[in-house]
Amino acid sequence: MGDRVQEILSWYGSDNVGTKTNLARLLRSGKLADTGKLVILPVDQGFEHGPARSFAPNPPGYNPHYHFQLAIDAGCNAYAAPLGFLQAGAGQFAGQIPLILKLNNHDVLHDDKDPLPSVTGSVKDALRLGCSAVGFTIYPGSVHCNAMYEQLREIAEEAKENGLAVVVWSYPRGSGITKEGETALDVVAYAAQIAAQLGAHVIKVKLPTAHLEQTAAKKVYEAAQIPLKTLAERVRHVVQSAFDGHRIVIFSGGAKSEDQNVFQEARAIRDGGGFGSIIGRNSFQRPKAEAVKFLNTIMGIYAGQVQ
Amino acid sequence: MGDRVQEILSWYGSDNVGTKTNLARLLRSGKLADTGKLVILPVDQGFEHGPARSFAPNPPGYNPHYHFQLAIDAGCNAYAAPLGFLQAGAGQFAGQIPLILKLNNHDVLHDDKDPLPSVTGSVKDALRLGCSAVGFTIYPGSVHCNAMYEQLREIAEEAKENGLAVVVWSYPRGSGITKEGETALDVVAYAAQIAAQLGAHVIKVKLPTAHLEQTAAKKVYEAAQIPLKTLAERVRHVVQSAFDGHRIVIFSGGAKSEDQNVFQEARAIRDGGGFGSIIGRNSFQRPKAEAVKFLNTIMGIYAGQVQ
Amino acid sequence: MGDRVQEILSWYGSDNVGTKTNLARLLRSGKLADTGKLVILPVDQGFEHGPARSFAPNPPGYNPHYHFQLAIDAGCNAYAAPLGFLQAGAGQFAGQIPLILKLNNHDVLHDDKDPLPSVTGSVKDALRLGCSAVGFTIYPGSVHCNAMYEQLREIAEEAKENGLAVVVWSYPRGSGITKEGETALDVVAYAAQIAAQLGAHVIKVKLPTAHLEQTAAKKVYEAAQIPLKTLAERVRHVVQSAFDGHRIVIFSGGAKSEDQNVFQEARAIRDGGGFGSIIGRNSFQRPKAEAVKFLNTIMGIYAGQVQ
Amino acid sequence: MGDRVQEILSWYGSDNVGTKTNLARLLRSGKLADTGKLVILPVDQGFEHGPARSFAPNPPGYNPHYHFQLAIDAGCNAYAAPLGFLQAGAGQFAGQIPLILKLNNHDVLHDDKDPLPSVTGSVKDALRLGCSAVGFTIYPGSVHCNAMYEQLREIAEEAKENGLAVVVWSYPRGSGITKEGETALDVVAYAAQIAAQLGAHVIKVKLPTAHLEQTAAKKVYEAAQIPLKTLAERVRHVVQSAFDGHRIVIFSGGAKSEDQNVFQEARAIRDGGGFGSIIGRNSFQRPKAEAVKFLNTIMGIYAGQVQ
Amino acid sequence: MGDRVQEILSWYGSDNVGTKTNLARLLRSGKLADTGKLVILPVDQGFEHGPARSFAPNPPGYNPHYHFQLAIDAGCNAYAAPLGFLQAGAGQFAGQIPLILKLNNHDVLHDDKDPLPSVTGSVKDALRLGCSAVGFTIYPGSVHCNAMYEQLREIAEEAKENGLAVVVWSYPRGSGITKEGETALDVVAYAAQIAAQLGAHVIKVKLPTAHLEQTAAKKVYEAAQIPLKTLAERVRHVVQSAFDGHRIVIFSGGAKSEDQNVFQEARAIRDGGGFGSIIGRNSFQRPKAEAVKFLNTIMGIYAGQVQ
Repeated sequence: MGDRVQEILSWYGSDNVGTKTNLARLLRSGKLADTGKLVILPVDQGFEHGPARSFAPNPPGYNPHYHFQLAIDAGCNAYAAPLGFLQAGAGQFAGQIPLILKLNNHDVLHDDKDPLPSVTGSVKDALRLGCSAVGFTIYPGSVHCNAMYEQLREIAEEAKENGLAVVVWSYPRGSGITKEGETALDVVAYAAQIAAQLGAHVIKVKLPTAHLEQTAAKKVYEAAQIPLKTLAERVRHVVQSAFDGHRIVIFSGGAKSEDQNVFQEARAIRDGGGFGSIIGRNSFQRPKAEAVKFLNTIMGIYAGQVQ
Repeated sequence: MGDRVQEILSWYGSDNVGTKTNLARLLRSGKLADTGKLVILPVDQGFEHGPARSFAPNPPGYNPHYHFQLAIDAGCNAYAAPLGFLQAGAGQFAGQIPLILKLNNHDVLHDDKDPLPSVTGSVKDALRLGCSAVGFTIYPGSVHCNAMYEQLREIAEEAKENGLAVVVWSYPRGSGITKEGETALDVVAYAAQIAAQLGAHVIKVKLPTAHLEQTAAKKVYEAAQIPLKTLAERVRHVVQSAFDGHRIVIFSGGAKSEDQNVFQEARAIRDGGGFGSIIGRNSFQRPKAEAVKFLNTIMGIYAGQVQ
Repeated sequence: MGDRVQEILSWYGSDNVGTKTNLARLLRSGKLADTGKLVILPVDQGFEHGPARSFAPNPPGYNPHYHFQLAIDAGCNAYAAPLGFLQAGAGQFAGQIPLILKLNNHDVLHDDKDPLPSVTGSVKDALRLGCSAVGFTIYPGSVHCNAMYEQLREIAEEAKENGLAVVVWSYPRGSGITKEGETALDVVAYAAQIAAQLGAHVIKVKLPTAHLEQTAAKKVYEAAQIPLKTLAERVRHVVQSAFDGHRIVIFSGGAKSEDQNVFQEARAIRDGGGFGSIIGRNSFQRPKAEAVKFLNTIMGIYAGQVQ
Repeated sequence: MGDRVQEILSWYGSDNVGTKTNLARLLRSGKLADTGKLVILPVDQGFEHGPARSFAPNPPGYNPHYHFQLAIDAGCNAYAAPLGFLQAGAGQFAGQIPLILKLNNHDVLHDDKDPLPSVTGSVKDALRLGCSAVGFTIYPGSVHCNAMYEQLREIAEEAKENGLAVVVWSYPRGSGITKEGETALDVVAYAAQIAAQLGAHVIKVKLPTAHLEQTAAKKVYEAAQIPLKTLAERVRHVVQSAFDGHRIVIFSGGAKSEDQNVFQEARAIRDGGGFGSIIGRNSFQRPKAEAVKFLNTIMGIYAGQVQ
Repeated sequence: MGDRVQEILSWYGSDNVGTKTNLARLLRSGKLADTGKLVILPVDQGFEHGPARSFAPNPPGYNPHYHFQLAIDAGCNAYAAPLGFLQAGAGQFAGQIPLILKLNNHDVLHDDKDPLPSVTGSVKDALRLGCSAVGFTIYPGSVHCNAMYEQLREIAEEAKENGLAVVVWSYPRGSGITKEGETALDVVAYAAQIAAQLGAHVIKVKLPTAHLEQTAAKKVYEAAQIPLKTLAERVRHVVQSAFDGHRIVIFSGGAKSEDQNVFQEARAIRDGGGFGSIIGRNSFQRPKAEAVKFLNTIMGIYAGQVQ
């Protein structure tokens, strides 16, 4: 096992062997195996945005098997999806790639300023489907944050007892913050801290802007002169905010974008000490061959093989 | 076992043998046995609309035994009803037709823009009554969607552990969408996707119109030029939206209608790749001999024996 | 065992032997034993209306033992009361008359347009007190109907597993219907249907008027020319609405009234195919000797011995 | 065992031997042992009103041991307090006096027109602390009455299974009634009835005034000419309202008052057939020697030794 | 074992040996071992205020290991933190210092006048991490006080069954009191009483001002002439309010302040009979060597070695 993976595992000294084994599975699969970096394919957009908005741009994506194969072909560290998508292929693709069962989801047929996703799967589901981890989304800033934190607490406890890893999507949103604030540096850093304090092994946040949202925090950022001009500096601050870099923090790819932008972001994540990316729409909304090439470029950036 | 049934069962590779066996029972019963098509008789209108509105047009229908016998005589794949109706006949008709216990219901003595049906039965009830499946209704678009999705999650988990199949009625309704939107193509396709992601084995939706409800979705439908002019095209899109046709999707018959309309709809369902119909009021609100003939015509359409 | 009792028991073919035995106990006790008819004494008014309003007209009724003895002396089929009243006498009167433990109750110190009674006893209480059945009140039309239906679902499941019968008081009330609508024929028939679908073995409703409350239902009543002019016709329709007469439907006596009215109502219930009465205030708010005579006259009407 | 105690125990014929034993402990302890009368010391005011308001008038009362010793020295039947106070002394004073653990409490840092106390202890706590009974407060008339009744139902069931007695403080309060109505005769009698129907073994109410609160009840009181002019008459009516005197009903002492008033009230309770008093502030807000003398005078009144 | 520790343990006579052992661990660790005094390091500010506001003033504090080492180096009695921070170091620092797992937390991305923290850890977490105690915050005065008291009840019961000690942060806040009232003497004393009644072994409150918030309490304070001019007098009253000094009461350090102020407060706590301090920001927001010196001065004050 690579030294970096051993170092990372050493940060999780209170976890049982099962959980450490599953963290190692995530870190030791695919093209980035043993580098300490991760690129994960997440496909929950069918639920979150609807099927046509998600899959019409590349219709093979309607088929759940497509995404298993894409993640395998591209050499991703793991594939993450809701219950339906995972159980439609977990049997056929058993053992070919680590799986992350996303345990809560939200649709836009009924939307709300203060989101509260539905719990749509269980730790038992993750175990019977052979997953390495469960995923859970929290929305700090929502009036429903208590409900989400407490659902996560219960799920994380059960997951850890059963030797699974816990991946938390921490996306500030709701009446506690402005739209601009959702990606403000102080807010994203806070979101990473909250996820870490709630016991997440892997934390997924959005890339932060240089905006500072909270008055009390802004004073401290200015007094301490925390560097925040470049994206790499901001990534570094977010990673520091997750236990001084002792938790795996990865960044989301967001909506479909120019490839060069995505690559530029990957370089900033790498240079700021981030652990990788979780890239959905930019991957599966193009033909598979292109997607594999696109993902491999990103992996190359993380592996230091691509500038 | 017919090849088509084997193919369909192969889509449910993560389910246990018990659940696959019960899916096979649904697919291998009645006149459409082994064709991969289904016609199901559902009778929950006594609860949902009241007894006189449901049964006065054909008074023998007040008697729960009537519907068991109708489904058997017509050669339906299954009979679906709430707890009271099923347990009034499950003993007498044991083993004669697969049963689906509908686990939630709603009455109109207290109605609401955002429906939340009551859970009126349990997986244990389904097991003690010898059912092959449980049925559950969700209303995406309702402010109560979380409650319904989470009730379904729990019920589906217990049902699958106990080797039952899960049939989901997915009917968009509530303050998140307009009245016209309830049957809009994008909304019905989304409803099918949600049910599939929640782990349904069989999905029941309404027939979609060519209306597009959601602005963000509409852009994609137009950009991707998704065919939607004919009912068959729309059925095809809904089936595609349920895991690219790898989930059983059936369509509801709706209120009492001209026979020719219903037959025309069945042809569109067949031509669009749908898996069949679930037809209540059009069946049981006429004399039994007529109902059997009517249902047999529909079965003939699905079996390709009737144009 | 009388043929009629055997016939009635045959309608409950999905129930276990314990439940059938307890249904038989209700049907085979007292003066109406084996006739298929029932007269039950219910005393929950101390809780529902207060002690003085209930018992000051006949003060021995303050004592819980009084009602046990009244029900026994009059030859009722069963005695129904809340936890406190039953456990104050269940020991002393053990085995002398079937008992029904009413599991939810409501007081008027805090009243509401949309009632939600409190659950005040349990199936375990019913078992330890030697009861034959549990009783539960639902208020279709209340905004809280979901809570009540789901409480009933749970209680009924536990009761049936433990071999008890389930008696449901189904009283439409709440913001979904008008005051007049509470006893409208369509509404009472619907209430009987709901109770039956929820799995009740015995259904208690109020006597219906000829008023029709719901627009959609009214059309059907008129189109189908459902007879509703006489009370007997209306009783017949309500009984039909409870699974075409395959569920035991009994009618409540209501507030204190002229004896001749009550007798007239009993004749209508008998002539319309109803299964009997549940008569509280008209029984226990008069001296015991008079009450016994009064109840015996009603039993005579049901037994066909009194015109 | 005294005949009166045997008679009282005979009213609880559905309870198990453990519960009867604990009821006997309450009735056979202290100076009033075997008389069928009770004087209980309750000290929950530290929680309900705050420490200084409760204990500054007699500072030794800040110490939880003080109240154990006071109850023992005065020869009370039992000592009742919340979890903290009881567990601070239950070990040291084990076996010296029956204990009642008050399981719900409310503070005035956040107050509400419609109170809902917090559940602050459990039946398991009562068992591990060697208590004879649990105490629980309900506020009939509060919009939260359902919550309280259902908490009590669950607690009482568990207590009885474990052989404990159940003491219910039934204090009408909330938006369902006026301030004056809280002690109106009809309301207090109704509160006693509700507690009895909920299964209380011992019922604590406030002393009633001659006011009649509810219109429907008032008519009955007038028609039946229920005597209510003297306090003894009103006590008699309340005791009658608790199962015709077949439940132990005791009366609260209320705020600090002139001793002669309290003695006068005790005489009225005695003459009206009440079972005793529960006296907190009038006992512990004076020096211990005075308190013992004061309580002994009251006990003398109940024992018939003091006029 | 020191006499004072034995005396303190004697106050917890109803607790099991496990809990007494863990209380002894808290009292017998660090520089103040066996003195009956405690200085605890709490670090939950990352969650409560955000990472930069908490750790930017002394960036090594981003690392969870830093705080373990600081508490050990300074000779604190215990280290208290939320799940994430504790489990990031509990393995490496096992057995070096007693740990307190803070089981509920609140962030300011969504804030509320009436706070209700999220439950973010469990007693099982505390046990698997080798903790000696659990910590829980209540906000008396919040409309959500019921929820918090009942969560605490459940947690405390489970903790005590498992031999853990229970530390309660009792911070009045919410719409029931004014901002000034949050630290009013009567309110802080009441908060200490509530925590004690809820069964806390160790109570943490804020230092009280001489303000009196509640009208009814103010009258008593004036009538009884409770001394409240000096901080030491106020501390003495708060300690008295926690069972006359028979519960361990410690005081919080609050926001960063001049060292001389903190020392002055420690002297007042000592002179008023308080049991010690819990000091977060004043400790970890300065370089470690300075922090150790600062904490040692405070410990010296409590030990009587520093004036």
